Amino acid sequence: MAWSPRRSAGRRLQLPLLCLLLQGATAILFAVFVRYNRETDAALWHWGNHSNADNEFYFRYPSFQDVHAMVFVGFGFLMVFLQRYGFGSVGFTFLLAAFALQWSTLIQGFFHSFRGGYILVGMESMINADFCAAAVLISFGAILGKTGPVQLLLMALLEVVLFGLNEFVLLSLLEVKDAGGSMTIHTFGAYFGLILSRVLYRPQLEKSKHRQGSIYHSDLFAMIGTIFLWIFWPSFNSAPTALGDGQHRTALNTYYSLAASTLSTFALSALVGGDGRLDMVHVQNAALAGGVVVGTSAEMMLTPFGALAAGFLAGAISTLGYKFVTPILESKLKVQDTCGVHNLHGMPGVLGALLGSLVAGLATSEAYGDGLERVFPLIAEGQRSATSQAMHQLFGLFVTLTFASVGGGLGGLLLRLPILDSPPDSQCYEDQIYWEVPGEHEHLAQGSQETETQA
Amino acid sequence: MAWSPRRSAGRRLQLPLLCLLLQGATAILFAVFVRYNRETDAALWHWGNHSNADNEFYFRYPSFQDVHAMVFVGFGFLMVFLQRYGFGSVGFTFLLAAFALQWSTLIQGFFHSFRGGYILVGMESMINADFCAAAVLISFGAILGKTGPVQLLLMALLEVVLFGLNEFVLLSLLEVKDAGGSMTIHTFGAYFGLILSRVLYRPQLEKSKHRQGSIYHSDLFAMIGTIFLWIFWPSFNSAPTALGDGQHRTALNTYYSLAASTLSTFALSALVGGDGRLDMVHVQNAALAGGVVVGTSAEMMLTPFGALAAGFLAGAISTLGYKFVTPILESKLKVQDTCGVHNLHGMPGVLGALLGSLVAGLATSEAYGDGLERVFPLIAEGQRSATSQAMHQLFGLFVTLTFASVGGGLGGLLLRLPILDSPPDSQCYEDQIYWEVPGEHEHLAQGSQETETQA
Amino acid sequence: MAWSPRRSAGRRLQLPLLCLLLQGATAILFAVFVRYNRETDAALWHWGNHSNADNEFYFRYPSFQDVHAMVFVGFGFLMVFLQRYGFGSVGFTFLLAAFALQWSTLIQGFFHSFRGGYILVGMESMINADFCAAAVLISFGAILGKTGPVQLLLMALLEVVLFGLNEFVLLSLLEVKDAGGSMTIHTFGAYFGLILSRVLYRPQLEKSKHRQGSIYHSDLFAMIGTIFLWIFWPSFNSAPTALGDGQHRTALNTYYSLAASTLSTFALSALVGGDGRLDMVHVQNAALAGGVVVGTSAEMMLTPFGALAAGFLAGAISTLGYKFVTPILESKLKVQDTCGVHNLHGMPGVLGALLGSLVAGLATSEAYGDGLERVFPLIAEGQRSATSQAMHQLFGLFVTLTFASVGGGLGGLLLRLPILDSPPDSQCYEDQIYWEVPGEHEHLAQGSQETETQA
Repeated sequence: MAWSPRRSAGRRLQLPLLCLLLQGATAILFAVFVRYNRETDAALWHWGNHSNADNEFYFRYPSFQDVHAMVFVGFGFLMVFLQRYGFGSVGFTFLLAAFALQWSTLIQGFFHSFRGGYILVGMESMINADFCAAAVLISFGAILGKTGPVQLLLMALLEVVLFGLNEFVLLSLLEVKDAGGSMTIHTFGAYFGLILSRVLYRPQLEKSKHRQGSIYHSDLFAMIGTIFLWIFWPSFNSAPTALGDGQHRTALNTYYSLAASTLSTFALSALVGGDGRLDMVHVQNAALAGGVVVGTSAEMMLTPFGALAAGFLAGAISTLGYKFVTPILESKLKVQDTCGVHNLHGMPGVLGALLGSLVAGLATSEAYGDGLERVFPLIAEGQRSATSQAMHQLFGLFVTLTFASVGGGLGGLLLRLPILDSPPDSQCYEDQIYWEVPGEHEHLAQGSQETETQA
Repeated sequence: MAWSPRRSAGRRLQLPLLCLLLQGATAILFAVFVRYNRETDAALWHWGNHSNADNEFYFRYPSFQDVHAMVFVGFGFLMVFLQRYGFGSVGFTFLLAAFALQWSTLIQGFFHSFRGGYILVGMESMINADFCAAAVLISFGAILGKTGPVQLLLMALLEVVLFGLNEFVLLSLLEVKDAGGSMTIHTFGAYFGLILSRVLYRPQLEKSKHRQGSIYHSDLFAMIGTIFLWIFWPSFNSAPTALGDGQHRTALNTYYSLAASTLSTFALSALVGGDGRLDMVHVQNAALAGGVVVGTSAEMMLTPFGALAAGFLAGAISTLGYKFVTPILESKLKVQDTCGVHNLHGMPGVLGALLGSLVAGLATSEAYGDGLERVFPLIAEGQRSATSQAMHQLFGLFVTLTFASVGGGLGGLLLRLPILDSPPDSQCYEDQIYWEVPGEHEHLAQGSQETETQA
Repeated sequence: MAWSPRRSAGRRLQLPLLCLLLQGATAILFAVFVRYNRETDAALWHWGNHSNADNEFYFRYPSFQDVHAMVFVGFGFLMVFLQRYGFGSVGFTFLLAAFALQWSTLIQGFFHSFRGGYILVGMESMINADFCAAAVLISFGAILGKTGPVQLLLMALLEVVLFGLNEFVLLSLLEVKDAGGSMTIHTFGAYFGLILSRVLYRPQLEKSKHRQGSIYHSDLFAMIGTIFLWIFWPSFNSAPTALGDGQHRTALNTYYSLAASTLSTFALSALVGGDGRLDMVHVQNAALAGGVVVGTSAEMMLTPFGALAAGFLAGAISTLGYKFVTPILESKLKVQDTCGVHNLHGMPGVLGALLGSLVAGLATSEAYGDGLERVFPLIAEGQRSATSQAMHQLFGLFVTLTFASVGGGLGGLLLRLPILDSPPDSQCYEDQIYWEVPGEHEHLAQGSQETETQA
């Protein structure tokens, strides 16, 4: 076994105490504020006359479960590509998301479903809480392997609040459309994490360089994450949209966009690869950019062709980003982006926001018919022109970038508190600091001992 | 390659013959007794006037599929943590569950849906059969690696019958509520397996000690099982509940309980771990205790706070169980519990039964309104007080522990029959006895040969 | 690192250019021909008076998502069993399926949903496109490891067209029933791939023999594929059937058939295995034959017993196929079938077609009642007798075998074009030709360096 320093009792106790504190505080706030909503409360649901089939559960639960799989399986395993950080990737994803979804139930609840002094919860709050957890995990991707679990929980504590605030400004004040979260989730999560990573810049990180790559099996584990994200992304974008044609169209558009981004990823990866070889990093990540790029526009009348074109572009930009932008980010801008979230969530998120603005600006009552009211209620009611909606969408992107940058900066300062347990430069991307790590090949070692004994 | 004894023809033929016998007998019983129910029969469904949307398929199939994933992916991979028993863990899970669900269709059918001489099958029978398979897999966890497939199938043969009988006593005679099976599935499966493991006690098991731990990759495979169990547990508890608010509330409560048990697991694991390090065994298992502990109460008006508190407690107890109770079980009580099912299913199951009794005892017509009839029909109809329901719930736990203990004892005696093929003490937790096992690194061996040749 | 030849610029550019060409052409065809259907178009859906709950999304999307998981996770990981072809297995599955589903949307659209000059897309087209992708992946299994991605894409380009044509002849001209595709998907995909593999016969393939087996971990990855295919197969067969009892019965029958094929697979595998040991190849593949064999008949009144019997037979035949037929195919017929698709899809597919013909021939108006119209409309309307339907089913099998054979032959000739980049005989089943492959144990190597440095 390699390096294994002793930590002081104070540092060792940080994680347990913070977990207990956060969970305790959350539970108390739940006791005071959180109540079942009409669809989950026995008395409220059975008051009045409606069929059980009308319960929102049947319209959204399958999509919620897909989203849930993406957050915990998808993000968790996608980050297992690091050769010695599998426990941290999947384990801290688990911890962060389990905390973020509770905390976000409170924060989003205050902004969106605070009625008569209570936060009312049900299927929609579950979907939204998982969405917020996704944003936190995107930020985690930028600083993966370079932060301890205490730092990560503090990041989540701050980020969830700012996520909720930004979402409130966009969806409730600006009345911007962003069902799949190109802005609120991907752009916000990516730039929050990138700025934070900038503040945490480690000039000596090359001491851990040899652990930063993948090995054969870790790349296969990561593909589990990729594929689950890929297949369920149509559910992600469609989970919170209007029922009926809204969910259906959103899923369809996302399906096509992802297919196209997969082909452009393979094309570009082989084009820029040494000797025409494909790079697993591109396939694991850039092929997903098609889901990000239609996060705003998939519920709109994007057209199937529009979905293909958007996905194609996103996959290409994302692949080129891994090849050319990530190295520049690190060398020139001192942003060390472990998972390349700038390429998968940052650039495709911004592109998705711009695309959403464009498609909103092209909205006509011919194209949407009576469905216009469900997608763009303010345009349908004559309170906004399509152009005005497009401008609001653009402004939403600007707001998101502002919140993400300021928040990431604050987060970075918070995480730099010297009291916080953080891995040394030479022990980044290494599970052994925070986890009991078994050997890689104990049975082989044992096997050869047996052989020796027998010999 | 290591040890590889020849087995006698009689022992080699046990598995094939038992599989053929069990499948043949099951098929004959199906031919005689099993028929489509109204929702799956072409003639019956189209007789009368109802919409296809009313078919139970649309209300329960997505939840069933999640349960199905938990049984086969979740339990299967969770047990892959052992370094040399991956084939056995996932393979025997596959075999056992595939048999148990058929056998349970018959047993549960006789108890629950025997109409006019026929067992009627459809979505509910599928969910219930998978539930019974889950109980069998929980028991499997206690004896994992120390039993052969013939023993396991015989265990399932017996356990499914007793499971059905216990479930019948609880749900039909005592009219106890236990939708997610804190009692019928988790408590029953755990104590059945633990008593059975006690009867099969191996004093010389330390000969296989070196194979009992995990290796780095096997822990990552196990996390696939953990995460799929965790994300789909809301579907497990809600799959058989009343439609509408019932399913919705059950899923919501389970979601919160699991989140809280995850945080308490991380807190306690770091607290009791050497140098504050987290232990994968805790994360893989105890984080799931939140699903077990609300198995009885999640469909009730537990409140979101109640779900958090219950999950928190369950995660903490489960983690402490792995640290302190499991060693005592083995050293003092001679119960060798391979997967720690006592910590994940046993104690949280009993706790869940007690919680269910408590929440039932607190039921009021104010809290449930007209929904009381769906959750506690006997209370709504005035046949029982809430306190009486609580007492019945408690008695259900007692009945379950009795059935599980007697059944586990009988099962242990059955599995000790000397004729049955069982691994020797020095070959426990080893795939090679029952599986053709390829090398771990053949291509590397080959690669180095190539290098040598070239050199 | 092993062998790594330089390829000419022409060969290196084949993949990027082909991807760009195919995606570009597809996008243009989408722009010209593909439009939202009534259920996905905002204006069309909101024109007229219907509830959002009637949208087909809610009836089929959960099943579609299960199919989607099977295609990308199931097929992808099932083929990861090869020790050095994990990237190729899961990566080329990803690429092929992402292309095939787009291309098939066009081809199937022209045949099935071409209205007023436009192809109308929605849930059904998504399910059907994924089905076609599954057929392509089955063919891929026969030639896995012996072809490059350019060859594979060209195969898909051809196969999708012939798949659509064959499906059109069967479903629309012959009005044959084949919901789960025993004929259109499994038989077609398998024999297309087998004939193609015959044309691509490599007499010197034994040069790569040492890479053709599995290693311990690759078998566990493959089990991920197996289990996801197994659990979701009920959704595969039921995804496109009639709503209500149709989907429900199809899922139920498939569930039972798979359970029985699992037991017969274990029985036969242990029976024919050396020293009674189980073989992972059988468990990974033959246990799935129960899903294939009821692909035609599961929507019919097969009865639960019929499902068990069919599954049992399929599992047995498939296991025996791996043991006895595959070696003969290779040595006598010069068909090198990497994944044994003949055993999993070929023989069980043909058996499924025969079973479908039999069950169709036994259809009576007593057994189906008013549901006859949904399963066998021509019989219900008196245009065909049950016997005539059975004959048409048989003829459908004949047509499928013809299309598959001719198509596979053409495909083989196409793929033999010398200009196409193809792995040499000594580099089959090897990722390194097409992928940047990290080391297996870089951190160990690094670890020992550290040890040395310290020492």
